[in-house]
Amino acid sequence: MVKQERAVRTRKSLIQAAAAVFAEEGYVPSSLATISKRAGVSNGALHFHFANKKALAQAVEEAAVEVIRQLVQVSDRSGTNALQSLVDATHGLVGRLLEDIVVRAGFDLSAERALGGDTALMRTWQAWVEETMRRAEADGHLAPGVEPDDAAAAIVAVTVGLEVLAGGDPQWLAERRIVGFWKLLLSGIATDDVLVSAWPAGGRAQTAVDVLER
Amino acid sequence: MVKQERAVRTRKSLIQAAAAVFAEEGYVPSSLATISKRAGVSNGALHFHFANKKALAQAVEEAAVEVIRQLVQVSDRSGTNALQSLVDATHGLVGRLLEDIVVRAGFDLSAERALGGDTALMRTWQAWVEETMRRAEADGHLAPGVEPDDAAAAIVAVTVGLEVLAGGDPQWLAERRIVGFWKLLLSGIATDDVLVSAWPAGGRAQTAVDVLER
Repeated sequence: MVKQERAVRTRKSLIQAAAAVFAEEGYVPSSLATISKRAGVSNGALHFHFANKKALAQAVEEAAVEVIRQLVQVSDRSGTNALQSLVDATHGLVGRLLEDIVVRAGFDLSAERALGGDTALMRTWQAWVEETMRRAEADGHLAPGVEPDDAAAAIVAVTVGLEVLAGGDPQWLAERRIVGFWKLLLSGIATDDVLVSAWPAGGRAQTAVDVLER
Repeated sequence: MVKQERAVRTRKSLIQAAAAVFAEEGYVPSSLATISKRAGVSNGALHFHFANKKALAQAVEEAAVEVIRQLVQVSDRSGTNALQSLVDATHGLVGRLLEDIVVRAGFDLSAERALGGDTALMRTWQAWVEETMRRAEADGHLAPGVEPDDAAAAIVAVTVGLEVLAGGDPQWLAERRIVGFWKLLLSGIATDDVLVSAWPAGGRAQTAVDVLER
């Protein structure tokens, strides 16, 4: 393995280890020694890649932002309507929160007071939700009187709330919770036309009627 | 002032000071020395009342739980229907989160990984929201097909999410956000009859039509 490849691999394993330690212990009490040990690298190697814990936290969050960017790009390119894109992306996000420790730690960090809150991860997710909701409005898919920014805010607040609550009980991120939320929200915001063809369980699920009658 | 009164007062000022320090610095980095200094009492006095930081955190949370209990009792006794009780209590909760540092710190603590998450405060709020939503169902105020537990989960997730997001930007707890959320949710869950007489801005606001047409 050439030197550069090894450096990339070490950096990646440090980010994974930091995410795991932050997620288990919280950002503030985590020590760099625990993180380097978990990554199986020396303290010196850690400091070669990251000046301090804050730099490591930023790298974890950037990695999580990249996952979110890819996730919303997939939703954007799926050729479905804007509201269905939002449903699909929410399911995708919850899947990543359950499976990918970097995404979970990235969300926790973005709510971390010690880092100032209101970070890139939250802004990326919020910006895409707002933009996509305005696209739904432009396409005439929102019921009369629905403010796209209100609907976007509800989605952002619910995703953040579910992630925080899941720290105490993972059932908050269960598939049925997300489906239940979308059934309610879609009835509140979508036009009747869009509602009958919407899939609250996500685009690759069975027909809309199956889901709504469950 | 008799001795007992002074003890009660000292205990109360320690809880207030702890809430302020936890809210500003986060639970884990806060020191007992900072808290006793802020309360204007000696370290000895602090230790007379609280064995350690965890005991202080529990006292903050218990004080917050008591505020929530009173809040939902007021909503229960208002003689309004169950859905309007939920709207009113949410507005009440957000008001307390903005004004009362103990309530805000209590919510933060209940999402604190170091304390194990899933605490009494969250359980108290969630239990009341679930119970009240089931009352709405029993009264026939939920639209056909609406699962009361889904609706309750959405409310709990939104309140938690808004509180966390407000750590970065207090605008997340702005009155119009809560009104906007309830307008959407009520259209999704309430029967048409209940919807026309519901006040998303809370029970003491102007008529429903004013609010809905804003």
